[in-house]
Amino acid sequence: MKLARFHTPPDGSGASFGVVDGDEVVDLGHRMASFEAMLTELHNATPRPDDPRWPISTVTWQPPIGPHAKVVCVGYNYPSHAVESQEAPPEWPTLFTRFPDSFVGAGRSVVRPYDTDSLDWEGEVAFVVGHPARRVTADRAGRHIAGFTCMAENSVRDWQLHTRQATAGKNWYASGSCGPWLVTPDELGDGPLRVTTRLNGTVVQDDSTDRLTFSFGELLAYISAFTPLRPGDVIATGTPQGIGHRQDPPRYLRPGDELEVEVAGIGVLRNPVADEARSLNPAEVHR
Amino acid sequence: MKLARFHTPPDGSGASFGVVDGDEVVDLGHRMASFEAMLTELHNATPRPDDPRWPISTVTWQPPIGPHAKVVCVGYNYPSHAVESQEAPPEWPTLFTRFPDSFVGAGRSVVRPYDTDSLDWEGEVAFVVGHPARRVTADRAGRHIAGFTCMAENSVRDWQLHTRQATAGKNWYASGSCGPWLVTPDELGDGPLRVTTRLNGTVVQDDSTDRLTFSFGELLAYISAFTPLRPGDVIATGTPQGIGHRQDPPRYLRPGDELEVEVAGIGVLRNPVADEARSLNPAEVHR
Repeated sequence: MKLARFHTPPDGSGASFGVVDGDEVVDLGHRMASFEAMLTELHNATPRPDDPRWPISTVTWQPPIGPHAKVVCVGYNYPSHAVESQEAPPEWPTLFTRFPDSFVGAGRSVVRPYDTDSLDWEGEVAFVVGHPARRVTADRAGRHIAGFTCMAENSVRDWQLHTRQATAGKNWYASGSCGPWLVTPDELGDGPLRVTTRLNGTVVQDDSTDRLTFSFGELLAYISAFTPLRPGDVIATGTPQGIGHRQDPPRYLRPGDELEVEVAGIGVLRNPVADEARSLNPAEVHR
Repeated sequence: MKLARFHTPPDGSGASFGVVDGDEVVDLGHRMASFEAMLTELHNATPRPDDPRWPISTVTWQPPIGPHAKVVCVGYNYPSHAVESQEAPPEWPTLFTRFPDSFVGAGRSVVRPYDTDSLDWEGEVAFVVGHPARRVTADRAGRHIAGFTCMAENSVRDWQLHTRQATAGKNWYASGSCGPWLVTPDELGDGPLRVTTRLNGTVVQDDSTDRLTFSFGELLAYISAFTPLRPGDVIATGTPQGIGHRQDPPRYLRPGDELEVEVAGIGVLRNPVADEARSLNPAEVHR
């Protein structure tokens, strides 16, 4: 099952959610309370004849996460990336958080702020919680996962390196993306997930989740020890080797670039890169 | 004006918000859309004759922040604490985030998790946003601040030190507190705020916001550069010298302790410390 959040045609103003069925999206907003409720009640998410449908080409994807989600991200979780970052293999998961509005959905522009030229890519696999999780053990983690998605967990490197805490480089408005949808575990199977990042069609990152230092279950166990997770909350599982910051010379994202994060079995998250407009429209920024 | 969130008597089940008037709370939940709306529309928050009132002694305080607030905290922002932590004076604000459910309101127990014996105190001044703020300059920051409050930005030191990122030590459920209420800038005036932390009546931290490395305005400017802030969002401005972790030997919070954070002109945030129950009630944890 593919689960999505989107704005509906014709003008993209109506926020809804539903399931992807071939080249259509089945809109469940008329009979389920929320995206988060859909994640918990998947048995009710089977399309019915009276559900509205939209052609995929007409909807605007939103990040398939709760609008108020806790977003917990993991650093240095692929040995290949720890090596390129000159980090010792971690004993514990290195965690930071992102605000949900630091992401856009598939197809929308990732924004390079006018304060920086060091917006960098980080292709990742993320998973979204479907059932409340506190103090979950690693072996039971699967029961709490609603689905998996692609994430461009992009970073503004100069601000990230202002201090030892990554926060300021990880939370720029609309700097990252995720989507286009969640794929449920039953559809995806138990095998490792291959994650590939492409910049303008050229592969820059390519690795597989069987090389994660901390598995999905170990991450959920560690994080849910200290904070209760609810439907719609997100764990981003880390990026592999190949970020632009470690190229010589560094190669950062520029307006006109096209960034793709593909996770086999899920799909392709594709976003153009655009410069931030100098004249901010507060009404747009704060919605 | 003192602005508060609370659960109403008799059973503490009804969540509401309003203004404190002497030893009563004026309940505005019946005529304003939300706590966040009240922060923006203070001109409508003046008590009216038909507003319900509750004796202060009968309400259960909630943290005076948005339930979905962005909570951005600042480390090493008092020179005295940077020195005790063996940190060089920072060039940029050191930022981390907390989830709102890591705080309880005044009077409720701060929870020491059963995973640790290193829950430590951090008395602070925090301020809450009242008007949307993005790319605000320091000199205009005051227009975006709804009010100031006391915060016990407590930390689980062993988990905080698992990695270089503070996240895991700063986000334990119900480990910190804030309140009891917000005091608006017009009532508080422009002078420095003295913040005092007491453990079982003994002063352990005592400093003044005129010694902050980064002022309220500078913090709001730096943070709002990258993330849009909305009514109810919170900035915790840092803790001064005197944490338990730097005592010799370290002294951490224990069940039965009483922690107080007083900010002159605001009031006293008082919380007992309790051990986490081994039998978690998920319904309580996840509400």
